[in-house]
Formats: sequence, C-alpha cells, structure tokens
Amino acid sequence: MGKIFSDISISLDGFVAGPNPTLKEPLGQGGEQLHEWILRLETWKKAHGKSGGETGPENNLFQTTIDRTGAVIMGRKMFNGGSGPWEDDPNADGWWGDNPPFHAPVFVLTSHSRKKVVKEGGTTFTFVTDGIQSALSQAKVAAGNKDVSIPGGANAIQQFIKTSLLDELEIHVVPILLGGGTRLLDNTGTAKLEKVKVLDYPLVTHLKFHIKR
Amino acid sequence: MGKIFSDISISLDGFVAGPNPTLKEPLGQGGEQLHEWILRLETWKKAHGKSGGETGPENNLFQTTIDRTGAVIMGRKMFNGGSGPWEDDPNADGWWGDNPPFHAPVFVLTSHSRKKVVKEGGTTFTFVTDGIQSALSQAKVAAGNKDVSIPGGANAIQQFIKTSLLDELEIHVVPILLGGGTRLLDNTGTAKLEKVKVLDYPLVTHLKFHIKR
Repeated sequence: MGKIFSDISISLDGFVAGPNPTLKEPLGQGGEQLHEWILRLETWKKAHGKSGGETGPENNLFQTTIDRTGAVIMGRKMFNGGSGPWEDDPNADGWWGDNPPFHAPVFVLTSHSRKKVVKEGGTTFTFVTDGIQSALSQAKVAAGNKDVSIPGGANAIQQFIKTSLLDELEIHVVPILLGGGTRLLDNTGTAKLEKVKVLDYPLVTHLKFHIKR
Repeated sequence: MGKIFSDISISLDGFVAGPNPTLKEPLGQGGEQLHEWILRLETWKKAHGKSGGETGPENNLFQTTIDRTGAVIMGRKMFNGGSGPWEDDPNADGWWGDNPPFHAPVFVLTSHSRKKVVKEGGTTFTFVTDGIQSALSQAKVAAGNKDVSIPGGANAIQQFIKTSLLDELEIHVVPILLGGGTRLLDNTGTAKLEKVKVLDYPLVTHLKFHIKR
C-alpha cells in the first residue's frame, strides 16, 4: 500500500514562509530563500517545463519524490493563497497557469465547493469540502500503488500529523532565520519519529523521518 | 577574543521544554526526552560528580563545549524556573544543589537584585539586573581567553540572537514532536547562518552554525 508523506523546505527557525505573504510574494518576506536549493535542479526545471539544471544527489532526491507521487493533497492556501468563496478570489485559477508542475491528480482542501479543473500535463484539481479523511480516500484511489504527497500548506500537514495519518516527513532545513511567518510544526500533538536518513549539503540539510504510530 | 555561543537540545518541532513545566518537572511534559542523549555521556556524568558513562564522538563534542566555556550567562527561568522577588521563590537556591555542573562563573539575568552566591567546584552565581549587555561585559572579563556560553533559557538565547551578540548556535535535534512548550527560535529577527558542521547519530542530529553579522 502507498505511503502518505510530506516533503517541504523550512528555515532553521521552522517557517515554511516568511511574514506578510501577498499575492505578489506568496512566500512572505524572505521566504523565497527556502527554495533556492531546489530551483537549480534539473528535475525541478523539467517539472516546470524548463531545460537544463544541476544533476547529482540532491537532484536524485527530488526525482525520487516526484517518481513516488501518485496523487497530491494540498490546502487552499497552497493552491492559491486564498480563502472564502471562489467567485471573489482574484487568484482562483491557482499559482501555476495552464501546465502546473504536479502532473498528477491534486485534491485541494477547501470549505467552498467547486467543479473539478483539468489542466495540461496530467494535473487535475479536485476540490474536497468534506475534510482530510475524504481527501485521503480519494487520493489513495487516484494514486494506485504510488504514494500520496501532502506538500503543504503548514496547516494541512499539521492536520495529517495530528490525526496520525502521515507516514513520513522529509524536511529540508535551510540555514536562515526568517524571524516569523508560517510555522510548519505547531500543535501537532506528540510523536516519536524514526530517522530514516540525514543528508547534508551546503545549501540545505535534508532530514527524513518515519512517524511511529 | 572569546566567542559567544549557545549549545542546546531541541525537539524537531523546535521546543527546548514541553508544555506545563513545574518545579517537579522543570522541562515540562515530555521534555526529559531532549536530554537522554547527553545523560549517558562520561563528560556529563563527570560534570555532575558521577563516574562511568560512554566515551566516543558525542562525548568529545560535549567535552569540547565544556573546555571552551570560561563563563556562563543564563536566564532566571533556567536558573530556577522562577520569576518575582527572591524571598518568595521556593526554589531560590537553583536546581543544582551545593556543587552545580557549571564549574565556572555564571551570570543570571533577573529583574531582582541579589548578592553573589559562591558554590562548590568553582561555580559562582552573579545576579545581573541591568540587562544582557552588562551581563556580557562581566562574563567576558570572567571568561578571559575562553568563550561565553548562553545555555538558556530560550528567551535569553533569543535576546542574544536578536541583538546580534551571538556568534555560534549549536543545536541538538532530537527526533520527537513535543506538540507545544517553550520554543527556542521565535522572534529572533532575520539572519543568515553559515553551517559549521552537521553530525548525525541515532539519538540526535547535531547542527552547528556560525551567525553572520
């Protein structure tokens, strides 16, 4: 059976986005620094329709994450930074345009119902209004033998940890202090984790954990 | 000139103590787990007047920290968990009895003045009521060519980071989620860090950073 995992970049002080996110600066002040390590990789560029980029162990790490992903569950904040009714949302189409980088079925957690959106490149957005258990059931079916990725936002990941639904957590620790913003790990409840691997590279330290039930 | 450093154990979710600390359980619920890795080391046992314990690379790591320390600055919370006037404090003597494990001059940040306390084994407690800059000046003189350690609490460390006084931060990440408690890194302001080293062992991952000014 497929696993449920999150794979996300954080600052040393634990933030996945800096303070004061806006539509123009969705990762908040300083938040772009969290993803500098990944933007340079060949696999990231390919998923975003670009060519070139670095190969090597960090690229392989990211390629493994892409290969294992059969379906994605994300929060509304990650989808487009919004909340409230879709018809009032200036970013209702999401951040990624016609060909989003997921290339898989995506289930978006929201309080506001909406018809499924089919994009190019294999990405579909299904809007789930009846909670994370329902989203997970649908994502598992869509993923088949592959794994279900919960890439964010922080609140969605926290819900999956708190309800003991998350199997694996992989964090990429960037050596900066953002001083504030959106915290990844807060109100998760207690858990013991089993370290699966630690890989240290100049821009980032990768830590992967299995969450014990 | 000596360096100013902090060396502290945290949970993966960033807490140096669990929720609801008390005089009987000063590290809060679950907080004792943060120090299991260190309690087994020969150097820790020796500093606490005990014999035996493990040697090896983690013991060497801790021995290096002890060897470089010429003086210590700590918050009142770390000294005894209290606040308010000393005469009303049931733990006014501190946590450590007649022979505390510091074996160096300790400067305690407090709003309430009090005479210097001389303990056995080279530990003295000087109570500083005029802020961290004053404590640092006194600690630097006391340390001579050695370094000044800021072991905690979280609030004291945050003040030293925020005012750009901390040179080095070494954290020992324990693979547990405490779900709440006292956070190490919050409201520190922004900073870029330079990774000095990362050492991974089964109970803990050690990450050492130089804080760029």
